[in-house]
Amino acid sequence: MENQLLFKFREKLAESKLDAFLVTSTGNVQYLTGFTGHDTFLLITADNRGADLITDFRYIEQAEQETAGFEIIRHKNGLIKKVKELTKKLKIKKLGFESNYLTYTMVTLLRKKLGQRTELVPTSDLVESLREIKTPDEIGRIRQAVDCARLAFLKVTKIIKPGMTEKELANELDYYLRLAGAENSAFGTIVAADERASLPHARPTDKIITPHSAVLFDWGACCQSYCSDLTRVVFLGKIPPLLKKLYRIVAEAQQRAIDLIKPGLPIGRLDKTARAFIQKKGYGKYFGHGLGHGIGRQGHEAPRLKGNKNKLQPGMVMTIEPGIYLPGQGGIRIEDMVLVTETGCELLTASVPKKLEEMVL
Amino acid sequence: MENQLLFKFREKLAESKLDAFLVTSTGNVQYLTGFTGHDTFLLITADNRGADLITDFRYIEQAEQETAGFEIIRHKNGLIKKVKELTKKLKIKKLGFESNYLTYTMVTLLRKKLGQRTELVPTSDLVESLREIKTPDEIGRIRQAVDCARLAFLKVTKIIKPGMTEKELANELDYYLRLAGAENSAFGTIVAADERASLPHARPTDKIITPHSAVLFDWGACCQSYCSDLTRVVFLGKIPPLLKKLYRIVAEAQQRAIDLIKPGLPIGRLDKTARAFIQKKGYGKYFGHGLGHGIGRQGHEAPRLKGNKNKLQPGMVMTIEPGIYLPGQGGIRIEDMVLVTETGCELLTASVPKKLEEMVL
Repeated sequence: MENQLLFKFREKLAESKLDAFLVTSTGNVQYLTGFTGHDTFLLITADNRGADLITDFRYIEQAEQETAGFEIIRHKNGLIKKVKELTKKLKIKKLGFESNYLTYTMVTLLRKKLGQRTELVPTSDLVESLREIKTPDEIGRIRQAVDCARLAFLKVTKIIKPGMTEKELANELDYYLRLAGAENSAFGTIVAADERASLPHARPTDKIITPHSAVLFDWGACCQSYCSDLTRVVFLGKIPPLLKKLYRIVAEAQQRAIDLIKPGLPIGRLDKTARAFIQKKGYGKYFGHGLGHGIGRQGHEAPRLKGNKNKLQPGMVMTIEPGIYLPGQGGIRIEDMVLVTETGCELLTASVPKKLEEMVL
Repeated sequence: MENQLLFKFREKLAESKLDAFLVTSTGNVQYLTGFTGHDTFLLITADNRGADLITDFRYIEQAEQETAGFEIIRHKNGLIKKVKELTKKLKIKKLGFESNYLTYTMVTLLRKKLGQRTELVPTSDLVESLREIKTPDEIGRIRQAVDCARLAFLKVTKIIKPGMTEKELANELDYYLRLAGAENSAFGTIVAADERASLPHARPTDKIITPHSAVLFDWGACCQSYCSDLTRVVFLGKIPPLLKKLYRIVAEAQQRAIDLIKPGLPIGRLDKTARAFIQKKGYGKYFGHGLGHGIGRQGHEAPRLKGNKNKLQPGMVMTIEPGIYLPGQGGIRIEDMVLVTETGCELLTASVPKKLEEMVL
């Protein structure tokens, strides 16, 4: 953990009146330590006595290589026994835990082991609220993930042709993502042709691309544990007039939201603005999901966009992805990633073609 | 749900003295219903009054297409509110839940909502114990997943050449899996060359294959929601004498375990037998993991192999994967999948080359 991150996290702990915190979700352990393994807990005290990474024989060497400033503690007979030993040694009275991640079974076991000595305090979003604000290093990784996504998309728009299936296109896209350096796709790549684009969560099928297909791609790369997430619709032949109309509405709704982004704006305002525009154009009920989501180590993380009363802060990274879905007819979604800067925002995905005329292949 | 499966599950419920059960883990919901969506709960009563699939607008149509015999119930304001309504309507006094899956937050919310009227009973392995025994339909899907894995492996053993990296090989393998019809890889494909093969959970790196490399592949396909999982080691040049020796020991350890498989045998005997052989040969401390695991919808599921006192039953499917790992030198693991039959077992992965002389490319 960089000292600054550990320092900030301990401030949060002190505010919460906890003596220590047990981090159990893999994403949060990795975020705080830089460790890339699994099945590992992190115990951090509010004062600077303890910062313990508890892992097993498989990960000892890796943890030593990847982390600095943590005591690497090996457990043999289960994580929970080791947590008991450490909380006893450190005299922890109030131990926070991640109630949104830890299962009921694990909490019950912990309660039993820790007994009266240590009170377990359910806690949420303590690490997540730190993760909302990205560091320059994190932003660099996200830029890389965008770049891999861009390269793969450009490649696929070159090889796409009638007769290919959605599944084949998704497979090619994922292949080129990794060839470009991604560890993996950030999530199950969506390729949805024609009327199937009206399903926001369509999984690729054997549906065949025709000479006049409109094909929606929703894809992203994972690079050095950080994600990208974009959506584009491409047209093989002439653009059907209805889709052309929808595309322009969605693009303008997106731009209106992006134009507002700067520190201090209530986050929920973005969704409201885009939604109001789509409603005004008569398609409000066909925009059935939120405007976007924070993104980083996970494809979806804080901040939530819809109904969020908190304010935009520099360092937040989020997707802006309005859509209109007409059942049986098709759909348009345009998704970009935005970084909140000191004075406004930067469109991280600006290099991926988006103008309507560029989408005709 | 096939009537038989629902019938068996209700028998289990009655044995547990539960009035109803809330299935929350995606794998278990999908297993019991055939539904392939997410974020969906299933409420089943011990008598035949209720079998309710609770989902949201995204999945209503899909649930209607994919399931039979369930009432599809749409929730708008959260799953838990709907669970409360249903348990009230059905007068459920004791409601079992999956304590190994449900988070502490969710259980707390449920407790609050259900109040005194319905007691929440933590339960484990109720659905999992049914999943241990595969139906002919499930076995058919597993065979398909093995076949996709085989085709992709054969393709990659044809294109592998010095200068390629582990990452490139993993990418090619995953590409061909999906080209062969798989939905996806069953897990993160492992490609580990030379000394890296001594790490049982190696992730592919930029390490370059040489003209004399030994390369370990651990891979599997997911077909119609069912998994395969195999491991093979291939040799680009002459086999180093040490690896030849290890290969023969591991192969014989595996065969000794497989030869024992038939209904009635205590499951733990398999691990003991393979381990005893490797120990006798002097490599006991270099076989640091269990002999294998059940496999089906998940890559790892019941039955556990090591230390399991239960008996083998027809319809169980499991991996048998002994290994020897010499830090800094390399490793050999051979992994096959076995179906327990009425009289013995069938090697599901028999068509994937394994003899030492076949592994030299």
